[in-house]
Amino acid sequence: MSVITVIGSGVMGSAMSFPARENKHTVRLVGTMLDREIIEHLKKTGYHLNLKRTLPSEVEYYHLEELDRALDGANLIIGGVSSFGVHWFADEIIPRLPVKIPVLSVTKGMFNLPDGSLASYPKYYSQKAPGRDFCAVGGPCTSYELADLDKTHVCFCGNHIKSLREIKKLLETDYYHISLTTDVEGLECAVAMKNAYALAVTLAVGLSLKNGDTLNYNSQAALFGQSVREMRKLLALTGCHDDNIIFGAGDLYVTVFGGRTRHIGTLLGKGYSFCDAMNALQGVTLESVVIATRTGEAVRSLIDAGKIKEEEFPLLLHISDVITKDKKVDIPWKAFESERLL
Amino acid sequence: MSVITVIGSGVMGSAMSFPARENKHTVRLVGTMLDREIIEHLKKTGYHLNLKRTLPSEVEYYHLEELDRALDGANLIIGGVSSFGVHWFADEIIPRLPVKIPVLSVTKGMFNLPDGSLASYPKYYSQKAPGRDFCAVGGPCTSYELADLDKTHVCFCGNHIKSLREIKKLLETDYYHISLTTDVEGLECAVAMKNAYALAVTLAVGLSLKNGDTLNYNSQAALFGQSVREMRKLLALTGCHDDNIIFGAGDLYVTVFGGRTRHIGTLLGKGYSFCDAMNALQGVTLESVVIATRTGEAVRSLIDAGKIKEEEFPLLLHISDVITKDKKVDIPWKAFESERLL
Repeated sequence: MSVITVIGSGVMGSAMSFPARENKHTVRLVGTMLDREIIEHLKKTGYHLNLKRTLPSEVEYYHLEELDRALDGANLIIGGVSSFGVHWFADEIIPRLPVKIPVLSVTKGMFNLPDGSLASYPKYYSQKAPGRDFCAVGGPCTSYELADLDKTHVCFCGNHIKSLREIKKLLETDYYHISLTTDVEGLECAVAMKNAYALAVTLAVGLSLKNGDTLNYNSQAALFGQSVREMRKLLALTGCHDDNIIFGAGDLYVTVFGGRTRHIGTLLGKGYSFCDAMNALQGVTLESVVIATRTGEAVRSLIDAGKIKEEEFPLLLHISDVITKDKKVDIPWKAFESERLL
Repeated sequence: MSVITVIGSGVMGSAMSFPARENKHTVRLVGTMLDREIIEHLKKTGYHLNLKRTLPSEVEYYHLEELDRALDGANLIIGGVSSFGVHWFADEIIPRLPVKIPVLSVTKGMFNLPDGSLASYPKYYSQKAPGRDFCAVGGPCTSYELADLDKTHVCFCGNHIKSLREIKKLLETDYYHISLTTDVEGLECAVAMKNAYALAVTLAVGLSLKNGDTLNYNSQAALFGQSVREMRKLLALTGCHDDNIIFGAGDLYVTVFGGRTRHIGTLLGKGYSFCDAMNALQGVTLESVVIATRTGEAVRSLIDAGKIKEEEFPLLLHISDVITKDKKVDIPWKAFESERLL
């Protein structure tokens, strides 16, 4: 049995304790400075205040000042911070980690590079700390359902297949299924894009609820299909393998039905301005909105550079306008129509 | 304005009267011998007993014996029969139609040819009656939501782009958006396959409801992603263009959330045998089950012919075993895991 240290006790990092404990590993969950209350409560009761589940028995809980002790003898480190903690993780935590131990990041999302392209978090970490083994998780998985042991299929990506196989062995269970790929940018790009497109698909939820309380699916399905089309174009454009779309489409599906991204898309579809919708969410900054903004920016720079045509990404550009320019929702349905001759 | 004659007053044929009347065409809805009660009721009240909506004003209603009158001066014929009426339509109706008038079929599905491959209904009709212009509708569109004017994006396929453009002009509205393609087999194959995969995805709905009343999405998303993967492989295999996946994935999405296919998939996922699930549906024969069976058979013959490997279609073969061999649901999660190296 191995020692797995999870840094960041957010919902996803914490949910990883389920497959890890299932496989009888020692699991050490370390809170960040923002997680004091969560860790205190876990130490006392084993109940996670945000995940709203009791974590598996014998998980060990640590505050950040106990990090070194939590890392002692670790065989795997799981990076459990949110997108907003990525810089902090890179600058403050990575230098303190043993060099030889692989880091599996559960954080989804990408950064814009100065040239307008997008870089995955593993790539960002590798640039900051070369010579270490950074891996990441992509694919459809909500933390709540992982904690409920719903059957889940994710993909781990990293540069070294041998290392990925070892990490898989540590974490796979009969409910947590793991594919592997060395196509890091491909997978991360696919699962980052779904943030923008999940907002876009859920506009149709809002549109339909605006007109009554029946939920229609024709319009959601039209936006879902258009999303798959644009996501595949973006993958091709960034030189990523097309098979990543299965994790992108799956991740899109789960995000359309989950939590706050659906909530904000629905409000926008109902006719709220972006500012009003964010106010209705009481100032919670959504990771998906940040990543949707970045994806929109990356596509804008590709258009500016003449690499792609504006008319190829009508849905992404619309949702990007809605969230960055506070434009009213007015889905460009006509622009989705195509003619394809054999 | 044109004259559009719809033959078959099922829910989808009848729903086509909404965009057609929106564009001020004369619409003649002709019932089959099974539709007497529907047509009688429509003549008296304008209310469609199965669609459960009042059809647009000034739609004209005909019984089958009035077909010739209904065809007089028609510019477009819409074939509105279900899969079960396709043979009857080919043998009894097509010979009575004016040769020069295009026929747009709303029936989704395919036939197995003796060599094990699948043929679209337009292809089948063309073989029966060469020299006519048979077109078809694919893509995500439930009749009920079309009747409610939910924004919809479909694709019309046919052999002649000029003719498709003319049909599009007759039917497009600000809620009924139409793409066009001459890739008839590609589109029809994509939207036929979704029947099998919609059954497969909804197994996860049943699995999750079996364990409580919370609907989980990780498992649905895993099956959705695997469906997209297998559908793309099937498209490639049949020489169809990959872009058809956007209508296939959209159609899959709408079918997962709609009506009886979801109902039966849910029952199977809960542990019902196929026979028990069909009994619970009180003997209604589901089009999607028939088409799922055909798709399964086509894939089995490709495997037998050594053209594909069994392990590439674990989900399709499982659902096919469940419905044709009355096998218990036991989703082959492990078989979905892959390793992909750059």
